Amino acid sequence: MKIAIVGYGNLGRGVETALLQQPDMEAVGVFTRRDPASLTSQIPAYALKDLPQHEVDVAILCGGSATDLIEQSPDIVRHCNIVDSFDTHARIPEHFAHVDAAAKESDHAALISTGWDPGLFSLMRILGLAVLPNGSVDTFWGKGVSQGHSDAIRRIPGVVKAVQYTIPREEAVARVEQGQGEGLTARDKHLRECFVVAGSEADQEAIRHTIVTMPNYFADYDTEVHFIDEATFDANHTAMPHGGQVIRHGHTSEGTPQVMKFSLDLASNPEFTASVNVACARALYRAYQEGRRGCMTIFDLPLAYLLPISAEELRANWL
Amino acid sequence: MKIAIVGYGNLGRGVETALLQQPDMEAVGVFTRRDPASLTSQIPAYALKDLPQHEVDVAILCGGSATDLIEQSPDIVRHCNIVDSFDTHARIPEHFAHVDAAAKESDHAALISTGWDPGLFSLMRILGLAVLPNGSVDTFWGKGVSQGHSDAIRRIPGVVKAVQYTIPREEAVARVEQGQGEGLTARDKHLRECFVVAGSEADQEAIRHTIVTMPNYFADYDTEVHFIDEATFDANHTAMPHGGQVIRHGHTSEGTPQVMKFSLDLASNPEFTASVNVACARALYRAYQEGRRGCMTIFDLPLAYLLPISAEELRANWL
Repeated sequence: MKIAIVGYGNLGRGVETALLQQPDMEAVGVFTRRDPASLTSQIPAYALKDLPQHEVDVAILCGGSATDLIEQSPDIVRHCNIVDSFDTHARIPEHFAHVDAAAKESDHAALISTGWDPGLFSLMRILGLAVLPNGSVDTFWGKGVSQGHSDAIRRIPGVVKAVQYTIPREEAVARVEQGQGEGLTARDKHLRECFVVAGSEADQEAIRHTIVTMPNYFADYDTEVHFIDEATFDANHTAMPHGGQVIRHGHTSEGTPQVMKFSLDLASNPEFTASVNVACARALYRAYQEGRRGCMTIFDLPLAYLLPISAEELRANWL
Repeated sequence: MKIAIVGYGNLGRGVETALLQQPDMEAVGVFTRRDPASLTSQIPAYALKDLPQHEVDVAILCGGSATDLIEQSPDIVRHCNIVDSFDTHARIPEHFAHVDAAAKESDHAALISTGWDPGLFSLMRILGLAVLPNGSVDTFWGKGVSQGHSDAIRRIPGVVKAVQYTIPREEAVARVEQGQGEGLTARDKHLRECFVVAGSEADQEAIRHTIVTMPNYFADYDTEVHFIDEATFDANHTAMPHGGQVIRHGHTSEGTPQVMKFSLDLASNPEFTASVNVACARALYRAYQEGRRGCMTIFDLPLAYLLPISAEELRANWL
């Protein structure tokens, strides 16, 4: 199947790396709004506006949710099938409706909001709900880099470089595993640890205060701020590790607790997200070949479709 | 949907408990080869031979693989849709073929080999393979009771009661999580711990020797045998806890390790297996209503089908 990559940031580069490892996929090219000649991609780069002139089975959209995907997904699905990793939870129903309408009008299929959260973590949340309906679920993120929180720090005057690690609190994880997670606050569940390179003239105490009191991002958490020099930052804080866990605790009968847990420990968040999205592109194309049209999510596809392996072989070797 | 339970051992009782908690299911009855009057079920009990006289959407078969399911599944699927938890891995392709043929001839659908292993663990193994194709997977079981190993001990002359716990070795789990699981033997991965009540005349040393040297079951493992009195056994060793973990370790690029892990910690193995099977009955019936016929596995159904919740609600609240 012929796969296009739209956008060439961290996620787009991860998709390129993943695509080149698939036995059944051909990477058509990277499509960008930048000057294609400026890209350092291994596969050919083209202008995004030229995408309709290429034969593409699935385009994997690698832009951001807020400004890119909300417009690109309904637009590009008019030309070909698409996979996106739209992650603005509150706007998923609206985004789904737009993509679904455009896909059906143009006789295409789309899979939105995949990756690991939303994506694999969502799958685990509904699996837990299905198997242990009498129970509760908690998600922990990290230890890992939150791009949104890192960006928020970088916008503070005087900050040269910054990274924010979200860290789950072990005590909270243990409580959830024991079915005692009720009433845990945001502050109870996660710590926020920031490493900041400040300009030589900057007032570090003012920066620290701005960070720890920032509404929505930090005010509701215990936040540690460490000022470090640029060499230390470049040596230790440029990777993008992440991970997390989904824990479902429930009872199948009085006094019979059961716990399901799914966890990820990722050296590279964008490369892992990319690997999920590439497998989802395969699944979507298979559904498309079977005649399915319109918008779907990872909830709607059999997991066998994610693999380039026959049902017989899956049953014989993997069941 | 109208659900029948076939067989009333531990699993059948677990299915009864789970069924009574589902908003969209009606428990038709328990069907047994024993005298129905001898059962202590909460729902009506009938003779298995009378099953065809009842209106049933899905029968959940709760017998053992070796002697019951291998014959019952292809037989009962001629009357109604079925779910089974056939777990003899080597014979799955043969069992699938028999059930598939019988289901297609009678215009029914079947879902075989579900539960947690095979079942949820299988799902996690293929999810790991799909997302991290360049990697390896290891499964650990326990700490939990192995019925097969407990039965093997109980067959030794002089043994009154016995239970065997399979225990994963933490060192092996840690090696797998770090991508260094290659070469681990059966002995490296699991310990076997046995609690035995011996008759007053029995030779405990002979029993111990028979256990630890038993081919297939114990000879390839480090096995601990503890002799205890019957009161201690009854007080501490009659529950059926189990659990385990599936760990996929892979690389998305050189030097970029990624780890996916799914684990279960179960106070009751049969009740949890039953809960999975009940959710699978719902998924199967939904596929049947959409026109699908023949034999399937959990690989072949969208996970959304496991739940009594609309796709809209799943997207809005669970993605």
